[in-house]
Amino acid sequence: MYPQSLQKLIEAFRRIPGVGEKTAERYALAVSEMEPSLALDFARAVEEVKTHLTRCKICGNLSDRDTCTVCEDVNRNHKMIFVVQSPRDVIAMEKTGQYRGVYHVLNGLLSPSKGMMPEDLNLDTLVERARKAEEVIIATNATMDGETTAMYIDRLLKETCPDLLVTRIAHGLPAGGLLDYADEMTLAHALSDRRQM
Amino acid sequence: MYPQSLQKLIEAFRRIPGVGEKTAERYALAVSEMEPSLALDFARAVEEVKTHLTRCKICGNLSDRDTCTVCEDVNRNHKMIFVVQSPRDVIAMEKTGQYRGVYHVLNGLLSPSKGMMPEDLNLDTLVERARKAEEVIIATNATMDGETTAMYIDRLLKETCPDLLVTRIAHGLPAGGLLDYADEMTLAHALSDRRQM
Repeated sequence: MYPQSLQKLIEAFRRIPGVGEKTAERYALAVSEMEPSLALDFARAVEEVKTHLTRCKICGNLSDRDTCTVCEDVNRNHKMIFVVQSPRDVIAMEKTGQYRGVYHVLNGLLSPSKGMMPEDLNLDTLVERARKAEEVIIATNATMDGETTAMYIDRLLKETCPDLLVTRIAHGLPAGGLLDYADEMTLAHALSDRRQM
Repeated sequence: MYPQSLQKLIEAFRRIPGVGEKTAERYALAVSEMEPSLALDFARAVEEVKTHLTRCKICGNLSDRDTCTVCEDVNRNHKMIFVVQSPRDVIAMEKTGQYRGVYHVLNGLLSPSKGMMPEDLNLDTLVERARKAEEVIIATNATMDGETTAMYIDRLLKETCPDLLVTRIAHGLPAGGLLDYADEMTLAHALSDRRQM
């Protein structure tokens, strides 16, 4: 029902996970109403993200070069490796300003039901890096797949690097979290991981 | 904090009204993970919507050509004009399958507070078209600006085309609407516009 050029853009937006029909229509109309130069910038940005963006060959994080800014930073502790599922987790952690080690991005989680097996994750280089590290902090999500992946990596690292310290980020009540709003798993974690005051 | 190419795409997505920081990050990452050919299609669709998409010179609706498919359709009643704010309203109405007349897209509503004056709307051609029409149905939204615009157009058409039938779409309870959930304006409309059964 829309003109063909608009229809094509609606379909393009619909390919982004989480964008429904109505939202795609709204976005496409908004783009059609943009300043021509801004719309061209948009088109170029989409193209360049595919041509320029690559993975850091050390940690697997997104980067415009062979290595990412974190791995290139000599002021960071390269003997402490924070293992996460995705580049977004790196950004979330960097925003805290509390972490001065380096990262390792798995680009996925183990999930036999979704066909995600160990060979689909960025694991080979993790073992190599872990040999030269002092601590590996496993920070996969507190979900079923995240826990499965954490356990798998823990076993893998203990087999290959017996002297390495392998830790898991803490699970418990979130900041500002109310006890009676927390789900049972969170409360169970908060209890079992309690510490002396 | 993101690689430059990704950061640029995030900023491009943020220019779409209603897309916040987190959503833009999610969309940009999704595009970066798309098949290269699909991402190129996306970039091309954004570009083409600016180069190909134009306004129908008759009704003001979006079109890939000088005139839109509705205005070109000889099987429609060109003496009945349905006046709406935006191209999206045309699509919404077309989806009902109930209307066989033509449209007139204002591309905005009068709103002195936002600086939208009569000359900013697609009104000149409406008067021209109304001279040859039998009925003009004013279907601007049931909002303050929509009502103001409806009243303005009604007066304008009555001055210029004294014999024309000018109507306003009905306002009342929506289909499936519950009386005690309806707001006061809706109920007041439903009462004043009541009809004999």
